[in-house]
Order: sequence, then C-alpha cells, then structure tokens
Amino acid sequence: MPKTLFKALIVGVFLIASNISFAKPPVLLTNSELKQVESVREQALNSNLSYEILESLTTEVGPRMAGTPQDTLAVKWAVKKFKALGFDKVWTEPVTYTTWKRGVETAQVVSPFPQPLHITALGGSVSTDSVFTSSVSSDKDGLTAKVIHFLNLDALKAANPSQVKGKIVFVSNRMERSINGMGYGKAVALRRNGAIEAAKKGALAIIIRSVGTDTHRVPHTGLMKYQDDTQKIPAAALSNPDADQLVRIFKRNKDVSIKLNIGAKPAGEFTSHNVIGEITGSTAPNEYIVMGGHLDSWDLGTGAVDDGAGVALTMAAATLIKNSGIKHRRAIRVVLWANEEQGLKGAKAYADAHTKDLEQHIIGAESDFGAGRIYQFSSLVTDKDIPFMDQMAKMLAPLGIERGDNKAGPGPDLIPLYKKGMSVFRLSQDGTDYFDLHHTADDTLDKVNPEALAQNVAAYTVYALMTAQYQSDLARPKEESKNEH
Amino acid sequence: MPKTLFKALIVGVFLIASNISFAKPPVLLTNSELKQVESVREQALNSNLSYEILESLTTEVGPRMAGTPQDTLAVKWAVKKFKALGFDKVWTEPVTYTTWKRGVETAQVVSPFPQPLHITALGGSVSTDSVFTSSVSSDKDGLTAKVIHFLNLDALKAANPSQVKGKIVFVSNRMERSINGMGYGKAVALRRNGAIEAAKKGALAIIIRSVGTDTHRVPHTGLMKYQDDTQKIPAAALSNPDADQLVRIFKRNKDVSIKLNIGAKPAGEFTSHNVIGEITGSTAPNEYIVMGGHLDSWDLGTGAVDDGAGVALTMAAATLIKNSGIKHRRAIRVVLWANEEQGLKGAKAYADAHTKDLEQHIIGAESDFGAGRIYQFSSLVTDKDIPFMDQMAKMLAPLGIERGDNKAGPGPDLIPLYKKGMSVFRLSQDGTDYFDLHHTADDTLDKVNPEALAQNVAAYTVYALMTAQYQSDLARPKEESKNEH
Repeated sequence: MPKTLFKALIVGVFLIASNISFAKPPVLLTNSELKQVESVREQALNSNLSYEILESLTTEVGPRMAGTPQDTLAVKWAVKKFKALGFDKVWTEPVTYTTWKRGVETAQVVSPFPQPLHITALGGSVSTDSVFTSSVSSDKDGLTAKVIHFLNLDALKAANPSQVKGKIVFVSNRMERSINGMGYGKAVALRRNGAIEAAKKGALAIIIRSVGTDTHRVPHTGLMKYQDDTQKIPAAALSNPDADQLVRIFKRNKDVSIKLNIGAKPAGEFTSHNVIGEITGSTAPNEYIVMGGHLDSWDLGTGAVDDGAGVALTMAAATLIKNSGIKHRRAIRVVLWANEEQGLKGAKAYADAHTKDLEQHIIGAESDFGAGRIYQFSSLVTDKDIPFMDQMAKMLAPLGIERGDNKAGPGPDLIPLYKKGMSVFRLSQDGTDYFDLHHTADDTLDKVNPEALAQNVAAYTVYALMTAQYQSDLARPKEESKNEH
Repeated sequence: MPKTLFKALIVGVFLIASNISFAKPPVLLTNSELKQVESVREQALNSNLSYEILESLTTEVGPRMAGTPQDTLAVKWAVKKFKALGFDKVWTEPVTYTTWKRGVETAQVVSPFPQPLHITALGGSVSTDSVFTSSVSSDKDGLTAKVIHFLNLDALKAANPSQVKGKIVFVSNRMERSINGMGYGKAVALRRNGAIEAAKKGALAIIIRSVGTDTHRVPHTGLMKYQDDTQKIPAAALSNPDADQLVRIFKRNKDVSIKLNIGAKPAGEFTSHNVIGEITGSTAPNEYIVMGGHLDSWDLGTGAVDDGAGVALTMAAATLIKNSGIKHRRAIRVVLWANEEQGLKGAKAYADAHTKDLEQHIIGAESDFGAGRIYQFSSLVTDKDIPFMDQMAKMLAPLGIERGDNKAGPGPDLIPLYKKGMSVFRLSQDGTDYFDLHHTADDTLDKVNPEALAQNVAAYTVYALMTAQYQSDLARPKEESKNEH
C-alpha cells in the first residue's frame, strides 16, 4: 500500500471517528444562567398574574365557542392583553372554518317512567328536525322513538341492524378516571364515531353517556363525526346521573321510549385568528421557543380549565421572563390557537402558514389539560441533549416535577408542527379531576386552584427560558413513539 | 290537735311525699327485649332493603313535585310498596292545596359582558310576563333591566328605594357549610323574603345566589313568599358559579344589564294524599310510634336525598321490625307526608284530621335531612324517662351515634303535631354535603351511600322498636327549647 494512500486512510478514519465520538456536545447552561432560571421560577410561584389573566378571560369574554361573536371578542381580548403585558410583538393570523350552532336540546323518557333527562348535543350534530321517517313522529318538538341500549361501541357495531333500525341508540359505556387521561382515549371513540356506527344500522339518533368522570347533571359536549356514505343522525350526550337512571329504567323494563329534541345545525363559514405574542430573542431572534394553549372553548362553560388555564399560564410565563430583564438568546413565542375544539383549525392554519420558517420553530409545549399541578416532564431529544435534560430535571424538581421518559408527544395544537418535524416537550398535569369539568357548564373559574396554576407557570418559565438559552438544535430522534392525549 | 286530724295529716303528708319521691318509674326494657332490639339493628345494617325502595321510588316515579302527575304516581307507588312490604294496614288521607307550575327559565348578561346564566325559578314565583312597566322592555322573551347588587338581605332592606326602583335586584349572600345545617337557617330568609323586600323598594325582579354549598351549575330552587300589600315580582336563584361570575362582573363594571325570562305560574287546586302504613301493636294497638319522610320532592332532581331517603329508610325500618316477628306493644306507623316542600300541606292536614286521636300519637321522628350517617340523637322527655334514654344510648352507640341533649325539635312535618303536644325524637344526620344537592337537579340516587342509608335504618329500628315496647307515656317536659331545621 503506497504511503500516501495509507496516510489518507488514517486521516479518513480519524475524521470519521471524530465525527462519531468526538463531536463537541452543546454547551450546557452556566451556573449563572441556572440561577436566573431559579429566580424567575420563584417569582412565578409567588405571582398571581396567571390567575388574573384567567379571571379576565373567563369573566370578560366567558364562553367562546368557535364561530360565535365571543370567538371574535376573545381574539380582541388576546391582542389587547398581550400588548398590556408588554410583549414585544403581537399579531394575528387568519383561520377560516365552517361553524356549528347549538339550538334547543331537550329529552324526556316518555315511557315506561316519564321524566326529563339532561342532555347536550355533541359538536357538529344535526337537528332532530332533519330526521323524518314514516315510522316515527318527528316535528318541531322533536322525535319520539323506542330506545335500544348497548353497553359499549363494540356491542353497537356487532348488533343486528334489524334490532336497531328506526330506534334511538343509547350507549352507556363509562369513562374511567385516571391521572393522565388515559380513560379519555378509550371512551372518546364512542363520542366521535357513535353516530356513524348507529346510522349504519339504521338508527334515528344516538345518545351516549357523557365522556366524563363527574356525577353531576352537566352533560359533556365534544366533537363528533359523520361519514359521507352514512345518514347524518342527531347525537347527544346524557349526564352521568341521567345515563345511570336510563340504565336502571332498562333494568326494569326494556320497552323504553324517549322524546328527543335537538335544534343544532351548521352555521356557515367564519374567520377567526390565531393570536401570537412574542418576546424577542437577543442573539437568535429567528429561533422560536413555542408554548401556548387554545383560545376557543366549548359554549357550555366559561372554558376556565379548557383551555383558559393554558392561555393564561403561558402568557404569564412569558411575561415573567420578559419582566425579569434576562437576555435570552431565542425568541419566546406564545401562540393562542383558534378553534382547537372543532378540529385543530388554528393549529393546521399555523402549520400551513409557517412552512417556510418551520425549522425556526425549535421546540413546542402546549398546556391543554386543565389547571392541575404538573407532576412529570418528558422530552423528545437525541443523546447529545440528555445532559441538558438533566439540568432541566434539577430546575423542575423543586416544583415537585419528576422526570418521565424521552418519548414526549405533542399537545393537540402541536400535532401539525410535530408532524412536520418540530420537537416537543411535555409538562404533564395531574388530570384526575379534569374530566369532571371538561366540555361542561361546570368548567368555570372557581374550579381553578391559584397555587396549582402558579406552579404551572413556574414550570413553563423553566421550560421556555432554558430552551431559549440552550445552544442546541434540540432535534428529535429519528424514530419516537407517540404519547398524545 | 285531735288524734284523727293528726293521723289524717300524717297520711296526707305521706301521700304527697310518695307522689313526689316514691312514684314508680316506668319499667325499663328487659335484657331479652334489648337483645331483640340488637338483633333487628344488626339485620338492618346488613340489609339492602332501604336502598332498593329508594331506587324504586327515584327510578319509577322520579321527580314528584306536588301538584304534578308524578305526585299522583308517587301516592300509588307508596300504597303498592307498603302492601308489598307486608304492612298490616295501609291507607291514604286527602291533602288539598294550590299548586305552582314551572315554565321556561333563562337568563343572560346583556351587558357589559354578554353570556348565559344558569338560573331556576323559586317555588311560587310569578312569571316575567306579569311584569310590565313603561321603563323596561318586557315581552314573551322576558324582561331586560339594569341590575343592582347587594351583599345580603339586610343591605337590600337598608337600600334607598330610588336606587332599586325599576331594576333587577341581585343578592349574593353565600350559605355556609355545616354538619347540622345551621347555615341554611341563616341563608334561607333571603330566599323566602327576598321578593317581598325587593318589591317594597320597587324592584322588577330578584335573583339570588342559590341557598346551597356546592360549586356546580345546578341552581337550588325552594319555596318563596309574597305579601298581600306588595307587588308580586319574579324570583329566581343563580347557581353558585353563576353568582360568583356576576360578582366578578360587578367588580369590573357596575353598569350591568340582565335579560330574565321566567314562565312560572300558579296552577290551580290539586288533591294528593298522605300515605300511611302501620305495623299493628300487640297490647297497645291504639298507641302509635310515628316515623316517616315526605313523599313529594322538588321537580329538578329525582328527590333521592330530599326526601326519598327518609321515605325509604323509615319504610325499611318498620318492615324489618315486622319481619323479625317480635311482638311489640304499640303500633309502628310510617307516615309519608304529602307536599312538604310547598308549605307542610300534608303535615297540617294530618294534624287536623287527627285531632281526636292526637294523644294516641306517643312520639314522632322524621327523617328529612338527606342520607348521611346519623351521628347523634336527642330526646324530649321528663326525668322519669331518662333511664330509658340511657338504654337507648346503649343501643345506638354501636352505630356510632352519640347522645345529644334533651331538647329535641321536630322534623318539618312533625311541627303541627309537635305544636299540639306530641313529643319528638331526633336522629341527627351528618348534613355536611346535604346542601350541595338540596333542591337541585343533582339530587339523584348516585349521591346516596347504601351503607350510610343502612345505618340510618338500623337507628330507626332501635328508635321505633324501643319506644313501641316501653311502657311510658314519654310525655314532654312542660317547657323546652326548639331545635328545628
């Protein structure tokens, strides 16, 4: 082997080896930077700012369902609030969607034991007016029909259509309570697909037990779907006590008739806005640390836990960082997403509008699981950034936040950005009570514990300030599992 | 002094002294009788009967407001159930009253922050249709007017009429939680008299914070009053979260307008019935030990805790005594009172109908404070019967029931009999959570703990069987203080 070739090979091997083993890891935060993080974190714990923002939103705007006048009011509120809080840049980005309007919604057991039931239409449901057949009485007062009871969605899917045709389907499956909302994932398929499955069997309408864990007469709404090749039938949720009652009625007598009156209907196209506030970065102003929540809510409550809390606590976290005067490298961008509830409309519009600068979105975290204390964090980084996550763990531990896995999934509004490659960070809240309130009239400010909310703010200051300072791309591993809710 | 006179005096003094000091005390229960009491008590603790009765009533009849078709259904249910349980005598006694009908009930903040409010009309309220003045818009859709906020009834009473005239009064006083319902006594005056006081100042309507301790969007109804010399104005209760919200709105802007639509109205005369079931006494069949609850409920819930529980547990207690085969001296009479909620109508009719045999009603106990565990008993007896109450204390102690004072007051339906001289016995329930549910849509079966209900039944078996066996008139002291709720 010629000497020069040998030398070239040696150099080549050395270069490859150095690329593999001797690449410089990103520089960790300095002790003085960590002291700044601790300082903002402690300020956040002692600040009422997030609660004040939340009180303002839920009182002055209140319910803010996408497509309603309060949707527009919420956007105005957000722009004004971002400016009042001193954000460096505040802007809106348009989001257009078709809307849905709630109408009258009543139900009664007609026989064997006449009594009223508490229901609410599922988001997207058609009206009972839209159902006309020769076999049922259906008029402006609603439709009256026999009811068939199934224990769960699978039982409905397995049913003989001849038993279902011309009836109202009732499915009584109950959601399980858990800290991380895993019961929701199991139960929500019924809400989303129940009307399709019932319509396939010829049902006139479907009523389901609310996807929720409470025991109050407040039914849970939420988005449902239709399918082009099946009939659109009205869909509503019963409160848990009403579902229990209907099960007891069936236990005594299976010949049950219900009168159902739903006035919901589609309501045309509407343009709302994502509202974005940014705290400028000092040396990397075109790199964005993303956090936020969704600005819309369902119409039944004032959206305090879903998702006023996420809006308020991320606005407060960025404000407290800004007010600390710390010069952070990257920009901190708070995005308040439009119309999450009816199909991630704002999130999709944002991802589409930011195709060009997508790579400047370094990492994102969304708060959309209520206002409970954060008990765990999880990341989605490569080995080179694990030491940084060790630093993060140390900063979060005093808040009672344990380290989870490195398989973080995106919050709902981050899914479109995540799908395009952005990394995510998750601060997991204790959601044990979240589904007592979720999508109900009971989602009101009194359910929020100000101290738990402040703990959330503190955690988001740690996340945002540390990732804004850290000189790494924070890129995702090539393959990762998902952990969505 | 002649000898005979001296002898007569001696005899006289002796007779007086023996009357005072040597009167024979009533014979206490024997050990074998006490063993029987213990045996029935333990059976009661292990019986599901009361819960089954309660499930039957709340499922098959459901809400049963006085004057509705369900009032009649409830009477039929009770007669049938008493017979099925094997009561020796079952009969009804008529009760006639004027009724009230609920109608539409909606409210919205019109300005400054438009949003819906959850309200319910107070029992007896007139409609908003009935209010017409030149200064307000009032039509089929309700009346819209400015709102004036008071912290409590006293502040309303002290207000200058010029500030109140032509407005809707809002009073935000909050009921306090307590084990014995003492907070209710303080708070309920606002519900009863608020409309009178507001009308005196020229108000168009009154909305109050619900008299209740929960934090759900379920307002509490309940009886209100008018006065002949003041205008009848509509009266409604806001749920606690809605009252909180309105207070927050006032904190920001005192120029608040509300649109209120109440369709309630008087609904004519109606005849219902007290339903009575009796287990015959062996040697004193014309002496009655009374217990019971009221059969009517408000219309919003299914009346599980108010007062299905009282109905079910006293029916079950008497049944278990009957089934034990024990020969008790006196009759055990379970009275299910008609229309307690709208003015003790059944209780008054019963007392009027039983003027002649009033003295045969030895003692009474009503269960009308929910389904919580009994923690204390109190009596209303003279010294001669205190040793009997010592025996009672021993029999109740294993149920976790402490001895209270000797100043027991009557449950609501016993007031008319109590006023005519009947003695009463009280088994005090833990009512800490009672006013979370009282008079709301949330008063449903799932709120009842079967084990707590069984403990109540056990206590009522002890009360009824012991007083039915005890050979004393159980007469009241001449003077006593009252302990009503």
